[in-house]
Amino acid sequence: MIAIGIDIGGTSIKGAFVNEKGEILHRFSLKVVKESPFEKEVKKLTDLLNEEIEKNGLKGKVKGIGIGMPGIMDMDEGMIIESPNLPEWNGHNLKKFIEEHVGIEVKINNDANVAALGEAKFGSGNKYQDLIMITLGTGVGGGIIIGGKLFDGHLHQGAELGHMVIRLNGKKCGCGRKGCFEAYASATALIKDTRMMMSKHPESLLFAVEKELAGVDARNAFIAARRGDKYGKKLVDDYVMYLSEGLINYCNIFRPEAIILSGGVANEGEYLLSRVRNYLEKEHYGMKGSPSVDVIVSSLGYDSGKIGAACLILFK
Amino acid sequence: MIAIGIDIGGTSIKGAFVNEKGEILHRFSLKVVKESPFEKEVKKLTDLLNEEIEKNGLKGKVKGIGIGMPGIMDMDEGMIIESPNLPEWNGHNLKKFIEEHVGIEVKINNDANVAALGEAKFGSGNKYQDLIMITLGTGVGGGIIIGGKLFDGHLHQGAELGHMVIRLNGKKCGCGRKGCFEAYASATALIKDTRMMMSKHPESLLFAVEKELAGVDARNAFIAARRGDKYGKKLVDDYVMYLSEGLINYCNIFRPEAIILSGGVANEGEYLLSRVRNYLEKEHYGMKGSPSVDVIVSSLGYDSGKIGAACLILFK
Repeated sequence: MIAIGIDIGGTSIKGAFVNEKGEILHRFSLKVVKESPFEKEVKKLTDLLNEEIEKNGLKGKVKGIGIGMPGIMDMDEGMIIESPNLPEWNGHNLKKFIEEHVGIEVKINNDANVAALGEAKFGSGNKYQDLIMITLGTGVGGGIIIGGKLFDGHLHQGAELGHMVIRLNGKKCGCGRKGCFEAYASATALIKDTRMMMSKHPESLLFAVEKELAGVDARNAFIAARRGDKYGKKLVDDYVMYLSEGLINYCNIFRPEAIILSGGVANEGEYLLSRVRNYLEKEHYGMKGSPSVDVIVSSLGYDSGKIGAACLILFK
Repeated sequence: MIAIGIDIGGTSIKGAFVNEKGEILHRFSLKVVKESPFEKEVKKLTDLLNEEIEKNGLKGKVKGIGIGMPGIMDMDEGMIIESPNLPEWNGHNLKKFIEEHVGIEVKINNDANVAALGEAKFGSGNKYQDLIMITLGTGVGGGIIIGGKLFDGHLHQGAELGHMVIRLNGKKCGCGRKGCFEAYASATALIKDTRMMMSKHPESLLFAVEKELAGVDARNAFIAARRGDKYGKKLVDDYVMYLSEGLINYCNIFRPEAIILSGGVANEGEYLLSRVRNYLEKEHYGMKGSPSVDVIVSSLGYDSGKIGAACLILFK
């Protein structure tokens, strides 16, 4: 069986033909213009899809098209309600448009949900039935897999895992609430904290790292910490605390077998993971009797969105 | 079909014969002695079960026995790992013992999960497929129903809904963490806050209410607030904030159709519910596109544990 998986971002659309083993057979992509009307942009996509199917000799052989994109959608109908990156698409039916122009069934879901599904089926989560994936990037996203299946709540609107308040009246979050997990555990939050630390401690090694990296990003704190800088260490300790407290909340709610971390900050690998594991071991509810939770990183990287989107079709 | 539902508390065991409509045909109960050995106490239960089955002419007609009890258990095996109320039961196999002595299949789950299942099948949740029940009592417990089925996580260890940190480094919780939902939204927490408010404001109406109720419990704040006392109102406002912030977290994670509140504080009814609804409407993520969430109270009351336990058999 072959499915097409499509990952719709704010500036480009990436797609892949994926077989039932989760292997990518062929990739394609196109730029998307934010200000351009919905029909124009999606017509470019459907033209490309028809061309790619034809070119690869797959006419009649593609079972369906899975799509992952951020925002709020009526997943069953395919209607886009609120697309933060592509506001021109609001109020349009993506599923219907593509089905009409390509003639193949389309399934849509949230990008974070889809990525979790990809990791669960063909990535580092493939030996688990119950897992949570948390993406630590510009924001904090996530997906929930229960019994090997994507859990996305009533009307597929669930699993906004970044928008759980962990500090009442805490830092302002993009969603309007105060104190969300995202406002503490995203790469963006870590960068803000790093800048704040630098403004207070001009003696910190963080400045040398800033020069090396030609800027401040989520890596600075970790690099400085690894070199023994106490301000870098403090940033990492605090970050581990924020992240772990959120993860423990999810452990207590879902008691998953594994937590998969992805996104930029997850690239810190064992240095981050070992600290998170220690924190979890110490704090999670019912330690005595509860199964422990494996904390691992994603293995599909940027392909998780495309492969996961294809999984909407492969495992429907 | 007839099932027996059993609710094991810290001082008594309550049971009922329940039919497939969720109707209680007959009730029974016995005292349980905390310090007494497991075999002795459970033998009293199995003797009573055999007697009740015989007496009611139901020999061969009971499909199974469902049990709800607090604590950490190996649900599939039936082994009790950590029972806070009945520590003598730790390390004993409850399921096996009862099956051997009564000859009927036994299924065990957490008391809060079981109560949620009861409400979902035969209580105020029976028109919903996806719901969350939160019990506001001594602690905060809860259960999750997804697609009409109990969701209890990996190895049935999930849904410790009271132990989600909502205020990092906040109030100490019984579980060892700081800032759990339970430490803010339980009746116990409200009572503590009420006492604290009284210690600061001797002019408050809370004192008159204390006299009427012959003590301080979770009702004092609500009674004083209803009579216009500003300190009572402040307590209720804060309580609504704590409760609602936790509920919004669960809305963002699960996007349920409904939230059912139960336990002592839920008896405040519409006075509490209308305030919670307003808070939720204002704050939950993706308001524009997300379906709204019904906030209601449980309808089975103290029977939810027994009926829910029977549902472990009726809907297995």
